Order: sequence, then C-alpha cells, then structure tokens
Amino acid sequence: MRVEIWSDIACPWCYVGKARFEKALDAFAHRDDVEVVHRSFELDPGRARDDVQPVLAMLTKKYGMSEAQAQAGEENLGTQAAAEGLEYRTRDRDHGSTFDMHRLLHLAKDRGRQDELIGVFYRANFAEERSVFDDDERLVELSVAAGLDAGEARAVLADPAAYADEVRADEREAAELGANGVPFFVLDRKYGVSGAQPAEVFAQALEQAWAAHSPLKLIQQDDAEECGPDGCAVPQQH
Amino acid sequence: MRVEIWSDIACPWCYVGKARFEKALDAFAHRDDVEVVHRSFELDPGRARDDVQPVLAMLTKKYGMSEAQAQAGEENLGTQAAAEGLEYRTRDRDHGSTFDMHRLLHLAKDRGRQDELIGVFYRANFAEERSVFDDDERLVELSVAAGLDAGEARAVLADPAAYADEVRADEREAAELGANGVPFFVLDRKYGVSGAQPAEVFAQALEQAWAAHSPLKLIQQDDAEECGPDGCAVPQQH
Repeated sequence: MRVEIWSDIACPWCYVGKARFEKALDAFAHRDDVEVVHRSFELDPGRARDDVQPVLAMLTKKYGMSEAQAQAGEENLGTQAAAEGLEYRTRDRDHGSTFDMHRLLHLAKDRGRQDELIGVFYRANFAEERSVFDDDERLVELSVAAGLDAGEARAVLADPAAYADEVRADEREAAELGANGVPFFVLDRKYGVSGAQPAEVFAQALEQAWAAHSPLKLIQQDDAEECGPDGCAVPQQH
Repeated sequence: MRVEIWSDIACPWCYVGKARFEKALDAFAHRDDVEVVHRSFELDPGRARDDVQPVLAMLTKKYGMSEAQAQAGEENLGTQAAAEGLEYRTRDRDHGSTFDMHRLLHLAKDRGRQDELIGVFYRANFAEERSVFDDDERLVELSVAAGLDAGEARAVLADPAAYADEVRADEREAAELGANGVPFFVLDRKYGVSGAQPAEVFAQALEQAWAAHSPLKLIQQDDAEECGPDGCAVPQQH
C-alpha cells in the first residue's frame, strides 16, 4: 500500500499532521507493507528566493491580521505541536520560499532519504533558531544530516532547473486530485485525507484503504510468454 | 501512475519483457509521471544458495526435457532476446538461488538505484560468462556498478535477515494478486499484464490505466486543520 503526502515545509499543520499520521502508522498491523512518499506543495509559490521575512510580519501583511492575532495563532499551533511531542518556536520564525527545499526532497527521494530529510527540514524550520531560507550552506548541512551527499545537494542548489519540473509536476497533481490545502494524504490513489486529522482518522483511513484492495483486471493473458514453477513458456518461432 | 513489475533474475522472459515494456514506456506521452518499482519473485525458492548448476542440467533434471530440447529452448529465447537488442548467452549459463539478489534489489530500492541494479543483474546473468550465483564479491561488484555503496551491499549479504522479509512480502503479494508466473506487471494496482507481451500490449495497458484514474474518496474533510492559499486554519482550543 502506498501513502503519498503533499505538504510544504512552511506549513505548521503539515509538521503536526506528519506526527499524527506516523502515530497511526506505527500502530497499523500492516505498517511494513506501507510505503510513504512525500510530494511537493508550496503555500506561497510566487515568493522570490531572497524575499525572507518574519512569519508574524508576513501574517499581518498578507492576511491583514493584527500582530496579537498572528502571535496567538502561533501560540496555538505551538500548543498543538507540543501535544504531539514536537518542538515549536512561536517567536521570530522566518517565512520564505520553499522551492529549493522541495527540489532537495526530490533528490532525497531518488537516494532513499526523503522521509529523513523532510523531518530534518521541519525541525530546522519550526524548532531551531537559524533560518532555513535563502541560505544554501544551511540547506547543504541539513541535507547531510539526513544522509545525503554534500556535493550532490550543492549541485542541485546550484542548478535552478534541477528537480524543478518534479516539484511542479507534484503541484499539478495536487490540483488534479482536488487538494486545496496541505497536508493532503492520498492512500493507494483511492482515498484522500485532508488536513492534520487526529491519529484515529488516519488509522481508520489505513484500515479502509487496506480492505479496499480490489482484484486486478488482467489486460491480456493468452499465450503469455512467462516463466513459472513449471518452467518457461517455449517461444513460438515468429 | 505506478507500475510494479514482479520478476526473477533467473527468468529469461523477465529480461525480455522488461525491454518490451520499456519500449512502450519510452513512447508513452506521460512517461515522466510513471514510477517503476521492481518486486521480488523466485522461480525456484527452495534452492539452497550453494546449489548451483548449469541451466541445461537443471532443465533436463527438473522438467525431464532432453538435452536437445533444453538447448533448443535456450536458442529460441536467445532469438527473442536478440530481437529486443539484448545479448543472451545460450550455452553454459548457470542456475541457482536468486534470494540474495532480491535482497540487494530491496537495498537498491531504498537508495534509488533499483532499476539500474536489476538491469546490471540481468545482463550479468544472461549475457556474461562469469556466474552470478553463490559469489558475494561478484554481487558486490555488480551492486557498485549500479551505484550502490560496496560496504552497504556487503553488509546486506553478510546478514541473511537483511531485507529477507521484504522479499517474502513481495512474494506473498504476488500470490495475493494472482500471479502464477513472471514477469507480472501491475499498473496502479488496477490492471495486470502477465508475461512478456509485445510492446503494443504494454502501450495499451499504460493508456488504459492512465485513463482510469478515478477521483479520490475523501475520508474526512470537515474542520480540517490545514494550511492553504488563505493561511492556516486557527486551531480550536481543545
């Protein structure tokens, strides 16, 4: 079974939702048969790479909140994160473009390190003091912490085209699947779960998707050239 | 879209079928949106690791063929392979356990090198003179040729439990999906193609599976704690 998770590093509910999903997955009887893939989604795709500002300033400017409202929202998110055992820095966090981080997550997918890297990125963005935005060396350090090769990470960052199409393809696919926000969980391309739902909802979704495995439709099986327990079919001379 | 291919390194039709499938995939308009995963299947799961014998001897002993029949079958397979541009050594090839190769293919999956490694294994088994069976250093060399780390490959070979469960889980899944032989192709867990069919059949299967993408069933979307273009949902105080 495969679970795809669309998310953004700059999305607090994605950070919290991942922990809730993993709680359900850890308790799922068939967890060893579940493959998790992370897909790209940018909440703020138009933002320039060097346009970095404090989250509170962004919230007041972009959504017209008062500074007190924005700060209260952050405190609330901190409480929700803490309930999942996650650290969350409610003050002076930065906001910026996550495009380069998504490109690195695609490199990490190819190297079997994607889940590690997204965990490292979330922690760095939400819990640590040093900003993750517009700082290539910081991203290389974090990539290495997730088991990637520093040279490979640096090469991806140096080439703006590297994995850019893959990020955009994920984003197009999110739109096609009907995701308006993140996190967005897709199980076997059959069931969707929108938002950081409680672990119980993820548990139910895993059970439901597991039970729904339907029999395959065989497209053609006459005269199959195949090998089986009784040997290999002897080919016809064409 | 995802295509899973169950196959065995010791299966000539898998070697040929992979080339035919790739011909169809290369010509498929959405090929960049197709992910290929290789799954384990052993044609001869009971064979001991050190029980290696020439293919012709195995065919005569196991299936009661005459040596001439067995040799003719190999020549025929060689002709089919050549038609796909593949080298195939019709004499003095060995047969043995492929379990360790399947374990390495699971390591390669985790490192994003699976398609490379299965290609290297096929070529080594079917086209090259040196046997791939019961020879750890040979498998390490081949793993390195596919971009894996020699130390990691060696560690997997040294620990008989490493990835053994993953191999068996793939084999159980093949049985659950109704595969009696290989190669067995599964598209989006919806369509199955059995055997090394002509490229046209794979092309049709890819088109059919692509057209059948069905809308997701959303399991719960009320009160979703998520972030979208208009900001992040403000959490309720629980």
